[in-house]
Amino acid sequence: MQAAAATGADALLVTHAADVRYLSGFTGSSGAVAILAPMGRGVRAALFTDGRYSAQARAECPGMRVVIGKKSPALLAVEWLAASGARRSAFDSRQTAVAALAAMRQALPGKLRRSFFVGADGLVARLREVKDPGEAAQLRRAAALGCRLFEEVLEYIETGATEAEVALALEIKARMAGAEAMSFETIVAAGRRSALPHGRASSARLPRRGFVTLDFGVLLGGYCSDMTRTLHLGKASQREWDVYHSVLEAQQAAVAAVAPGVSCGEVDEAARSVLRRARLGKCFSHSTGHGVGLEIHEGPRIAAGQKQLLEAGMVVTIEPGVYLPGEFGVRIEDMVLVTPKGSEVLTVASSKAWMEL
Amino acid sequence: MQAAAATGADALLVTHAADVRYLSGFTGSSGAVAILAPMGRGVRAALFTDGRYSAQARAECPGMRVVIGKKSPALLAVEWLAASGARRSAFDSRQTAVAALAAMRQALPGKLRRSFFVGADGLVARLREVKDPGEAAQLRRAAALGCRLFEEVLEYIETGATEAEVALALEIKARMAGAEAMSFETIVAAGRRSALPHGRASSARLPRRGFVTLDFGVLLGGYCSDMTRTLHLGKASQREWDVYHSVLEAQQAAVAAVAPGVSCGEVDEAARSVLRRARLGKCFSHSTGHGVGLEIHEGPRIAAGQKQLLEAGMVVTIEPGVYLPGEFGVRIEDMVLVTPKGSEVLTVASSKAWMEL
Repeated sequence: MQAAAATGADALLVTHAADVRYLSGFTGSSGAVAILAPMGRGVRAALFTDGRYSAQARAECPGMRVVIGKKSPALLAVEWLAASGARRSAFDSRQTAVAALAAMRQALPGKLRRSFFVGADGLVARLREVKDPGEAAQLRRAAALGCRLFEEVLEYIETGATEAEVALALEIKARMAGAEAMSFETIVAAGRRSALPHGRASSARLPRRGFVTLDFGVLLGGYCSDMTRTLHLGKASQREWDVYHSVLEAQQAAVAAVAPGVSCGEVDEAARSVLRRARLGKCFSHSTGHGVGLEIHEGPRIAAGQKQLLEAGMVVTIEPGVYLPGEFGVRIEDMVLVTPKGSEVLTVASSKAWMEL
Repeated sequence: MQAAAATGADALLVTHAADVRYLSGFTGSSGAVAILAPMGRGVRAALFTDGRYSAQARAECPGMRVVIGKKSPALLAVEWLAASGARRSAFDSRQTAVAALAAMRQALPGKLRRSFFVGADGLVARLREVKDPGEAAQLRRAAALGCRLFEEVLEYIETGATEAEVALALEIKARMAGAEAMSFETIVAAGRRSALPHGRASSARLPRRGFVTLDFGVLLGGYCSDMTRTLHLGKASQREWDVYHSVLEAQQAAVAAVAPGVSCGEVDEAARSVLRRARLGKCFSHSTGHGVGLEIHEGPRIAAGQKQLLEAGMVVTIEPGVYLPGEFGVRIEDMVLVTPKGSEVLTVASSKAWMEL
């Protein structure tokens, strides 16, 4: 509420599902949280959802006021805030559609409509960037499962298998190991397709010689993992070996740069400068990483020029890559927790050393 | 563009991923489509995305102008529209966040900022409600796969198995049969949990006696299936038998009501009136159904009072249910294609007859 209060608001309305879950524990697909904190008169909060979730909401949010209604949860929340005496409410302008805001305004008494809502960017998203110890433990578990699955899927990686078969084996193992789902579409990109940064597993067959990039994650206990390893089938060329080791050097330089108080731009530059020196700077066509938590893409952004400072408790990916269209590509990615003194690699169980199968 | 032109616009900007895919064929996670149609001077369209998708976009959108850039696709599209002489562009106010609209405005030359964007609700969503024959065929395939999986998973449904085990067996079979993913979180709700309309598969064990509700769907070739069957383990009570058959009668009445020119509210009422007569009206706590296609929830809404008329080519779910908290629940759901003369049930291969295992 401090951040909301900075906008002059005495209330906060949250509708984005991951934010609602973060604040309330509610995991249903349709919910809203309203927080009311009038100056010096304590804080009240409530969860709003519909009849399908009535039992689930009460079980998941003990001690929280739960309001069930037939309207959309956001409109129920607006009516509750207005009836409870709120004068001005912050809402997340990144997570609220133009039409949804108009409907929320319409749900207010006429005299409040003009001044009630004040937009604020990513209020809860900012809170979510720093994980508490329970969340860090959950992310550690998710990352460890990712590493275990990678080792287990290695036996499926062989010349002639399709990318989709490798992905399928991985995803079945993930579900059998307790993952709720994958945290994003599994990437298996072999041979020339390894030059596609987002090469979703296709019906292409793994070649006799060439790189295979696996980029995947699980959703475990609500939290996402994310990791990438690139290995080589058959005998590699000197060029392939060199590019791999440039990416590995860049990745390790960026991991080593992670510490509280370091800017995201500095971490990006640590990777980028290594690749620039290897004359591969232009082949690293995306940013170095992103935060990860309840959602696969969260803040902070580890990208060129980003001035945001890392804080202990943040969990970010470090994933530089080099892509040579028509030839091959290499990407190596870890999940890294920012600790009070530096960093802890959560995907430490999977070796990043050159692997030739 | 006709709908956009009705708002006084000579251009249309589309950013919602499913809408972008519908218009362009592009399946990446980050893209925008801009369409420019100045009065009497032909139509130009372009797809905007980032460097990760450059090869994929050109392959998926042959014959379409593809623009790759470092900014967000929406901002690239805005700059292209302004540079191409557009004066006024429609955007989807349901799919555009307040902050995104502000950023889009900022990307315009100063003199265009105030008047350029005109909000329009669900422009492309409206088009997507009516499926062309290719889309209907894809939905028919997805629905048929759903039915096959239901038959195959029956052997896992037995006293003592957990809901999660049944869901896992179903999901593994789905992936092995070629589905990209499930179209939503699989619901397996047994015994008293069948009274939860959204009872995601849990660690609860299937009881010796009681209902088991399975509500699930696959994503196949980009299109979603959705179906629900409720079966009974052990000997049922007269009450359970009666409620099941009331729901079945309601579901069949609503399916029979589906035809072009019939309002969505009439279809909902066909189901609801049956349950009201059985004194179960208050236990049917949600709407009767929804459109389904590239996304699991699309228009039209089959709900009380909805005046929208069904049109040939629409595909909707018909899924009434009765929920008796603390006791049990029953839901039966089909996917139904509106045909020129009436309807075709796409999930016809799975019997809705009373099933006692």
